[in-house]
Amino acid sequence: MRPSKLFGRTLREAPAEAQTTGHRLMLRAAIARPLAAGLYTWLPLGFRVQTKVEQIIREEQDRIGAQEMEMPVLTPAETWKQTGRWDMLEPITFRTTDHNGREFMVSYTHEEFAHLHAMQEIQSYKQLPQIVYHFQSKGRDEARPRAGLLRLREFVMKDAYSFDVDQAGLEKSYAAEYGAYERTFKRMDLDAISVESDTGAMGGDVAHEFQVLTEVGEDRIAICSNCDYRANMEKATRSMQDQRARSDGVPPPSQIATPGTESIDALEAALKQPKNAFLKTLLFRDQSGKVVAVVLPGDRDVNEAKLRKALSTGEVKFASDADFAAAGAVRGYIGPVGLKTRVLVDEGVGGGGYIAGANKKDAHLRDVVLGRDFQGERVDASDVREGDVCPKCKVGKLTIKRGVEVGNIFAYGTYYSEKMRATFVAEDGTQKPFLSGSYGIGVGRAVQTIIETHNDDKGIVWPPQVAPYHVHLIALPVNDDEVRAKAEALVAELEKRDVEVLYDDRDETAGVKFADADLIGIPLRVTVSKRNLKENAVELKRRSASDTEMVPLASAPVRIADIVGSWPR
Amino acid sequence: MRPSKLFGRTLREAPAEAQTTGHRLMLRAAIARPLAAGLYTWLPLGFRVQTKVEQIIREEQDRIGAQEMEMPVLTPAETWKQTGRWDMLEPITFRTTDHNGREFMVSYTHEEFAHLHAMQEIQSYKQLPQIVYHFQSKGRDEARPRAGLLRLREFVMKDAYSFDVDQAGLEKSYAAEYGAYERTFKRMDLDAISVESDTGAMGGDVAHEFQVLTEVGEDRIAICSNCDYRANMEKATRSMQDQRARSDGVPPPSQIATPGTESIDALEAALKQPKNAFLKTLLFRDQSGKVVAVVLPGDRDVNEAKLRKALSTGEVKFASDADFAAAGAVRGYIGPVGLKTRVLVDEGVGGGGYIAGANKKDAHLRDVVLGRDFQGERVDASDVREGDVCPKCKVGKLTIKRGVEVGNIFAYGTYYSEKMRATFVAEDGTQKPFLSGSYGIGVGRAVQTIIETHNDDKGIVWPPQVAPYHVHLIALPVNDDEVRAKAEALVAELEKRDVEVLYDDRDETAGVKFADADLIGIPLRVTVSKRNLKENAVELKRRSASDTEMVPLASAPVRIADIVGSWPR
Repeated sequence: MRPSKLFGRTLREAPAEAQTTGHRLMLRAAIARPLAAGLYTWLPLGFRVQTKVEQIIREEQDRIGAQEMEMPVLTPAETWKQTGRWDMLEPITFRTTDHNGREFMVSYTHEEFAHLHAMQEIQSYKQLPQIVYHFQSKGRDEARPRAGLLRLREFVMKDAYSFDVDQAGLEKSYAAEYGAYERTFKRMDLDAISVESDTGAMGGDVAHEFQVLTEVGEDRIAICSNCDYRANMEKATRSMQDQRARSDGVPPPSQIATPGTESIDALEAALKQPKNAFLKTLLFRDQSGKVVAVVLPGDRDVNEAKLRKALSTGEVKFASDADFAAAGAVRGYIGPVGLKTRVLVDEGVGGGGYIAGANKKDAHLRDVVLGRDFQGERVDASDVREGDVCPKCKVGKLTIKRGVEVGNIFAYGTYYSEKMRATFVAEDGTQKPFLSGSYGIGVGRAVQTIIETHNDDKGIVWPPQVAPYHVHLIALPVNDDEVRAKAEALVAELEKRDVEVLYDDRDETAGVKFADADLIGIPLRVTVSKRNLKENAVELKRRSASDTEMVPLASAPVRIADIVGSWPR
Repeated sequence: MRPSKLFGRTLREAPAEAQTTGHRLMLRAAIARPLAAGLYTWLPLGFRVQTKVEQIIREEQDRIGAQEMEMPVLTPAETWKQTGRWDMLEPITFRTTDHNGREFMVSYTHEEFAHLHAMQEIQSYKQLPQIVYHFQSKGRDEARPRAGLLRLREFVMKDAYSFDVDQAGLEKSYAAEYGAYERTFKRMDLDAISVESDTGAMGGDVAHEFQVLTEVGEDRIAICSNCDYRANMEKATRSMQDQRARSDGVPPPSQIATPGTESIDALEAALKQPKNAFLKTLLFRDQSGKVVAVVLPGDRDVNEAKLRKALSTGEVKFASDADFAAAGAVRGYIGPVGLKTRVLVDEGVGGGGYIAGANKKDAHLRDVVLGRDFQGERVDASDVREGDVCPKCKVGKLTIKRGVEVGNIFAYGTYYSEKMRATFVAEDGTQKPFLSGSYGIGVGRAVQTIIETHNDDKGIVWPPQVAPYHVHLIALPVNDDEVRAKAEALVAELEKRDVEVLYDDRDETAGVKFADADLIGIPLRVTVSKRNLKENAVELKRRSASDTEMVPLASAPVRIADIVGSWPR
């Protein structure tokens, strides 16, 4: 390919809206372009990268015996309704209706349809286990698409689905995918760690994310300083061992006047007590409009993912004034005592006396004790934070890092197969539901995460195995007949040896060409110049190194093919 | 791959709703499965076929220098509105609205977006010509999805877009794609002929379809018996040389009583005149609600595609009672004389006197002459039919055949670039609009068309170059240790030689296995049986032939690899 004809031009400056280093470089190097917020086109250079990333994913899926197929983008509402996800996913999905009024979802995952096919194609335990997968475009109505390819409204995901006869089989399939993911990310040169994660709208209990730790990530990961505990903040817990004070001898609640103190911060300042001496009470509405109060220690924040899971809902919103009135609460002075609504109590709330809102304007109660003065369902609904004690080893302290989720795996067992009556004939002749799991990798997000973690101040530094081309060949000056002839002969020689060459034949200065080569970040730069040809040599420079190597023109094809052949695949 | 673990089971009987031979075989052989009307999943066997078909298309696009990219499925309304196609395509497309009220189309073609990218990436004539392409899912709200993969509501299309500096350049790009299409279909063993076609919603004037003539096709193609004229019925014309009678001496119109004769058939019977002695007048409404009358010879049918094009509309419907009243017409007795609406007159209407509706109940007029008694805009709005005279050589007669459109190419010049102000800097320094064309191939339709034209009474007979596997290896009986060991050793030997093997290791009878092999239609069947092993031999049988060949076991890998190597790619 010649840049004079390459569809995609490099930019000296990134558009002002670019949010991260990878986003800026991806735009500047003509990897992808937006059509609208969250909707991107792969330009030819980026398309080559995504093809290589996809091929690595494919090879590792095939290695564990997974079979490639392809399910459609548009999926009928009826099937979603069987599992209740038509409504649950409404806030984050795109829907369409045909001219006869039939509804479809622009699918954002395919569990329901993988199960539909499994029940049609798999009749007997003898055909199990099976894993199928596809690469398909997904729609997701993100309110805030972010940082280029990191959070899109449409993206291609590899999603795999495993079907097993029993829990042991599912665990084996899960382990096989786990191993495939480790190899997949390693081959892309992504340093992904696995962390425990929330199962969200997927159902089930066991799930892992593969996270690449980087400041541009929007996920927060709790990591133990002592053991191997690593969890997404949406799932992370902490040891509560030192949290529970005794309630013995706490006097009954008494009212205190707190005029104009409507927040924990204001209470802390007014009453000279630490934040964790207070109870924070928040009122929410779930997707179906049901109201619930959540009671937390005053120094903790509610974790929305945990709350959604506790409520089995797709969305929670803050309650309205009418909801406050119905619950007998007053904004700024809400507390759990006497509240006329469902109450969830975070596990961080201990057994001692707390100061809490009195549900009257300008008043709080002191000496409020859980179990004595108010009741509630115990849940884990709060964030962990730096310094919390690890829930696993109970020794280490948690630190919080940012990460980009490049993959996720879920073992949800019979969550879908029971709802859909997706069964097979077991060895004992009875109908049994499949035990299943799902395994996803976003292709575009992986590509940009590679850029985020492989760059320098001049541009991208592609790992060779996913680079758009192996060699960036520069002719200087291109309008010198001998230079051009030798350069083109070298390109032909290299292509004969299956070396992928981007040959810069533009009539531009050395400065422009070298800057573009550094920006695009192809692993090996080869310069054929008038000066070097005087010594019958060409110059090689690796993008990842600063030194150069002079090679005789005659042996250049062999030398370059050797370098390319030494790279990991 | 082993059928015992293959995701996809063969069916003894096709579902009753299967409409064509290819549809039935595609379902029975587990190539694809429907999720809903017009929405299909590729099962693993079919996915392998579509991958090979896609790769042939890709290689022929790459050969002419086209660059692969990928544009999204969801496309923003704003851009469609620039060219007026947001409204025009409404009847046949799926739309969605995000939670902020922003509208998107599930794209069914990408001209607008290819132009959007071209104007961003291409600044100078020096960067031209360029062709870009992608494989992407398209949505199309088909009222009547048909015959499996032949007419879907979602399908993957390869669509390419060319950009040139001038008409000569466009013609060169068009010719390059034309050649690529000829090679592409030949490599898939599809006998596709090119025919002139309507440009429909694409704009412009020059377009060709590649049609495979088969009775299952829903397109009708007019083919000249004498010259190379071939055109889709939506575009086909006829020579009018003998159609025009003289109007000299025709008396003025006079009313005749025609009680209860509301159709051409009824008039023919009542007045004992041939159908072409009458004028047929039809009243339509276009997409924007405008009413138009179309006047045709009584023996001709209106051609909706031609009419839509004449009206520049996306849809025409029959007019309402109110429309009849407003036009001063009476149903069953409508005629062009005195009609109060826009009138289109088909080119088939000659200069002589006709019998036409009188716009009064139970009355017609005789001696109605175009240009004297009524006026109208001349258009071509009628179907050709068998026996019409060829419009090109004016000698041959047209015959009408059915065909499946497997590809189409359009040269529309500046149709989009002018509307979108998509320009480049020309050699003379001025801004000029791109001259462009579009080039599409539907992957799934191509696969099913291959099945429609490559089968026998036992099943599919894949052309080797697109077959899901090269070899279908059968072990008989599989529970014989020696047979299984030898069969598995042969599979390993073959896979080492890059021969793709479907190894039937199921514990089934020879009859079941041979029937499945014939149904799935892999080009070479290899049988390792107890009987043949007594003579240290294996049996080879080509799916396309009836004879078998016995080969020594020891030399079988080499012999089989030789056969596979001899096939076209």
